Amino acid sequence: MDIEPIAYFRSPLKEKFGIPRQSGVVPELAGRIEFTPAYRDKEALRGLEGFDYIWVIWGFSENVHGSPAPADKTAFKATVRPPRLGGNRRVGVFASRSSFRPNSLGLSSMKVTGILSTADGPVIEVSGGDLMDGTPVYDVKPYIPAYDSHPSARGGFTDIEQWKPLEVSFSGDADAQLEKVFGKGSEKEKKTIAALVAQDPRPHYQDDPDKVYGMAYGPCQVRFRVNGDKAEITGIES
Amino acid sequence: MDIEPIAYFRSPLKEKFGIPRQSGVVPELAGRIEFTPAYRDKEALRGLEGFDYIWVIWGFSENVHGSPAPADKTAFKATVRPPRLGGNRRVGVFASRSSFRPNSLGLSSMKVTGILSTADGPVIEVSGGDLMDGTPVYDVKPYIPAYDSHPSARGGFTDIEQWKPLEVSFSGDADAQLEKVFGKGSEKEKKTIAALVAQDPRPHYQDDPDKVYGMAYGPCQVRFRVNGDKAEITGIES
Repeated sequence: MDIEPIAYFRSPLKEKFGIPRQSGVVPELAGRIEFTPAYRDKEALRGLEGFDYIWVIWGFSENVHGSPAPADKTAFKATVRPPRLGGNRRVGVFASRSSFRPNSLGLSSMKVTGILSTADGPVIEVSGGDLMDGTPVYDVKPYIPAYDSHPSARGGFTDIEQWKPLEVSFSGDADAQLEKVFGKGSEKEKKTIAALVAQDPRPHYQDDPDKVYGMAYGPCQVRFRVNGDKAEITGIES
Repeated sequence: MDIEPIAYFRSPLKEKFGIPRQSGVVPELAGRIEFTPAYRDKEALRGLEGFDYIWVIWGFSENVHGSPAPADKTAFKATVRPPRLGGNRRVGVFASRSSFRPNSLGLSSMKVTGILSTADGPVIEVSGGDLMDGTPVYDVKPYIPAYDSHPSARGGFTDIEQWKPLEVSFSGDADAQLEKVFGKGSEKEKKTIAALVAQDPRPHYQDDPDKVYGMAYGPCQVRFRVNGDKAEITGIES
């Protein structure tokens, strides 16, 4: 079956590093769903304002506004190593949300924070998204709690994962630079950057307190170090 | 993006009439996910036994084991009329789960009731599915309650929908025929058939107490009538 993007996701995260590993992990993170010309009709969103969440079906792809590379169907890998299991335990691909799967489809629930009419068509404002800027979106559906919510369901290996966010601080330099880049009242950006770093974007096999990481966020590069369960944001460069 | 079926859904419902309108509405209904030859590897399901539910991304299609007809992208309809709103109120296509959507992708959560190894590869046994027999499946992902469950979310027009199941009885003839088709101990089939009819599969605009409907179920045709909020199953023919 041939499917085509109906929309693209817009996020301050324009690179893979730092993207939340699942939707909802960083609720502070704002994003937008912008429709392609063929689907710019505000009537298509009529009634959506009554729903708190949507489902987004999207494509795993680092090609911004391009087609994902066709998956190599001959090289089906039955198992993957989820980062949250330390990257050394294997689980079946259909027991994981890994991007390495036969059809490159992703699924995320996102909170609807606004529905706009713009000169470029309707836009859905969301929070908690886990998609890189430019990710193609193939479908948007309403989240129906009566059918979609199973709060007491067992969550397999994700139940035993004891994940604790890092404690994040900003150096004096970083604070000053933040205000320079985002202006006065940059509290929202500060909170979002802190929440993104708190989920520890480092590759699982790295643990070097001197290493400085760089995370692209909007117009700037966020520099940070991690020592144990503490992260320090050392600089924010535009 | 080109996607291909990794599996097909197996259900006693081999026609559209009677299929639950959403997953979970008829929890009695059993189904199976059978993988295509390229994906028959039990390792691909390793760890899935720890999850109570899965997400299934599937294709709206009445073509059993064939490709769905390509959607006519030029004929984008921005609104649809959900049956649960009486079929006369319009909502946006992205505020509904309607099958009339730009990309023919469906999304259902289903309860995992078993994971089998068979001569034809691994099989996921599920309950509560809302797919017709032969529906192509494009992806299976674990349901992760920490990210996917939003029990207090507002559900838009589905919140105000006051839907009451029909009260279902079996005629003496139907009871005898049921035992003839399914043998002694046909209680499970009886419960499933009653639950399917209870959700009122009739088109929304029909209300004729004398009309006899036929629903294909496994090897038989179930005949029933509806009068007000009561349904009578009048016969079960093989």
